[in-house]
Amino acid sequence: MSKNLADKVLTDILNATALPNVISFAGGLPAPESFPVNIVKNLAVEALDTKGANLLQYSRAAGLDSFRQTLAEYVKSKQISTTASNIGVTTGSQSAAYIIAKQFIKPNMRVLVESPTYLAILPIFSSFGAEIIEIKTENDGINIEHYEELLKQGESVTYIMPNFHNPTGITTSQDKRTKIAELIKKYNTLLIEDDPYNELRYSGQPLQPIYCDAPENVIYLGTFSKILSPGLRVGYFISTTEIVSKLASTAQMIQLHTSNLTQAIAELYVAKGLLTEHLPKIINLYQKRLDTMVKELAPLTQQGFEINKPQGGMFLWVKLEKDITGEALYEKLKQKGVYIVPGEVFFPNPQDGKGFIRLNFTNVAEDKIVEGCKIIRESLG
Amino acid sequence: MSKNLADKVLTDILNATALPNVISFAGGLPAPESFPVNIVKNLAVEALDTKGANLLQYSRAAGLDSFRQTLAEYVKSKQISTTASNIGVTTGSQSAAYIIAKQFIKPNMRVLVESPTYLAILPIFSSFGAEIIEIKTENDGINIEHYEELLKQGESVTYIMPNFHNPTGITTSQDKRTKIAELIKKYNTLLIEDDPYNELRYSGQPLQPIYCDAPENVIYLGTFSKILSPGLRVGYFISTTEIVSKLASTAQMIQLHTSNLTQAIAELYVAKGLLTEHLPKIINLYQKRLDTMVKELAPLTQQGFEINKPQGGMFLWVKLEKDITGEALYEKLKQKGVYIVPGEVFFPNPQDGKGFIRLNFTNVAEDKIVEGCKIIRESLG
Repeated sequence: MSKNLADKVLTDILNATALPNVISFAGGLPAPESFPVNIVKNLAVEALDTKGANLLQYSRAAGLDSFRQTLAEYVKSKQISTTASNIGVTTGSQSAAYIIAKQFIKPNMRVLVESPTYLAILPIFSSFGAEIIEIKTENDGINIEHYEELLKQGESVTYIMPNFHNPTGITTSQDKRTKIAELIKKYNTLLIEDDPYNELRYSGQPLQPIYCDAPENVIYLGTFSKILSPGLRVGYFISTTEIVSKLASTAQMIQLHTSNLTQAIAELYVAKGLLTEHLPKIINLYQKRLDTMVKELAPLTQQGFEINKPQGGMFLWVKLEKDITGEALYEKLKQKGVYIVPGEVFFPNPQDGKGFIRLNFTNVAEDKIVEGCKIIRESLG
Repeated sequence: MSKNLADKVLTDILNATALPNVISFAGGLPAPESFPVNIVKNLAVEALDTKGANLLQYSRAAGLDSFRQTLAEYVKSKQISTTASNIGVTTGSQSAAYIIAKQFIKPNMRVLVESPTYLAILPIFSSFGAEIIEIKTENDGINIEHYEELLKQGESVTYIMPNFHNPTGITTSQDKRTKIAELIKKYNTLLIEDDPYNELRYSGQPLQPIYCDAPENVIYLGTFSKILSPGLRVGYFISTTEIVSKLASTAQMIQLHTSNLTQAIAELYVAKGLLTEHLPKIINLYQKRLDTMVKELAPLTQQGFEINKPQGGMFLWVKLEKDITGEALYEKLKQKGVYIVPGEVFFPNPQDGKGFIRLNFTNVAEDKIVEGCKIIRESLG
């Protein structure tokens, strides 16, 4: 990524939050109106009423047994067949990725990632001395031939976001998932499958996680950040019992365990069918916002812009017409109170990203999306 | 520590929890009856009612601003004068220690600790390649001359538990605190002051944290685990704004931030005066248990045992008469359904600890303390 530009953009955006009338497509936050505040409140009460003092005592690093059982049942809805002892609870997906890195990444180990990849994950691997290597990436996921070439070159860990990728919105095709599973088994390598947006699908058919075809080689990451609340900090990983046991020991060293109260809230949210009830509301909210944004930006396709509508997630990735760069558009729009993220910040070599921008559609009301997109169109007119 | 014996003891104790009629002085848990379950429930409701969706959104790594302000006010009761920006919130003290180690410990760096020291902290430092070095320790804290010798030998970080030490119950004297503060300033070195039991004082006068005399060189660790609930996982550190800012970045990489809900519960617990109201109940509960245990074991002093009653905390450290070892007594008592921790497990060289046992008095009811101590006395009769 371009560190300086990224820092500048981040500072601008943070400063802008204090300004009136700003429209920000730059963030990566769920909409606060998607949070089931009353449900969380009722579940906190129920958890403390039923589990009492047990909930306030120390507990085990792998997570509450009852929650792990609930999760094992829940992930069937993602086509994952597993058991409670294959699941570990974490303080969100970031925490899962960190624990995995602490356990497995040694200095100079190669970490293979999509190009571009999720920004906030890279410092974790780098902090343990990993060398980050980009796999060529196409509209349906990584280039399989290039991936195999990289795997051949020696030991590595792979990090992939298969659904509605951040920032590109790309979903890895079923065919590529199958091939990736074959390759990681063939080269006996570990793959981190980070799937935070899994439940946020607005069109198309759900695809099987890579984990399903290579359960010995994948650590699957799930989270409650997009379907319940990011502020509660609850996530989980799924892998072999051996890996779960190792990661639980590491998690214990890092923080003993994830808060029991937040675990219990997430457990009841799933077990009582409240997620099933609430999720369609979130999907409906976001789907409309995505539709609005795509519709409002559609005229730009006549000017050479490419808008690839994602099947889910939180981001729209726009390929710019060749005469403008993400950074230039960023500066232009900033003057008009509209914030986007220029593609340059997502690539180790900023030049690779200059033809793109990332737009978040989940945390902006529809009327603001209309207004912001109008400003974008006018700026480019 | 003796890794094999420690593992064996831990396994025994975990297995024993499933057995009926076991009396365990081996654990290190607060009493569940000390947890204010209803208060936590009411505060969870109040937090969600007043902060609403904000509480469920992502927040900043250093912690909620309002909680940090509340903490700055609260720690005046510990004689610490500081500001919100000098405080960072963590997922318990273990998490604080881990974040500090991730930030500051480099391979082969020396970490100076009391002899013996708190067991669960050592793997953190070791995992970053630190060399653990014991400072000679007396009944009023570390030996100052030996400490200076070690400081002279080059770069190091010091880890100290100044109040009601685990396992020894020792409180570092005011005189030694002053001298330690002078030394760390003189050698410009960093000291981690881990103070989980601060509020659990049953006798004597509160002493000033080392932090007060060397705020540029100390990271002070506090926790809600012993005064509210360990299962919620809320702790904090206090240091310079520069260190707080560095540690917040590291915390962000590790887990983004501590759960907002648990932060808000701890905040209201302090801000509404509920801690002030509830704490005397915890102290009263534990003080009686300590008094009972000391009284019941007093006859052993005639057989050459030394019982140093701590001024607070959770543990009684007993020096055995010379003909019996901790491990031998452990095995003997295990047969009778009473569990203790043999001193051997607390020392890098187990021989150094063979003359001691550690007894937890907080999580055993008074009648069970009477019964368990009777069995200890009879075993030694």
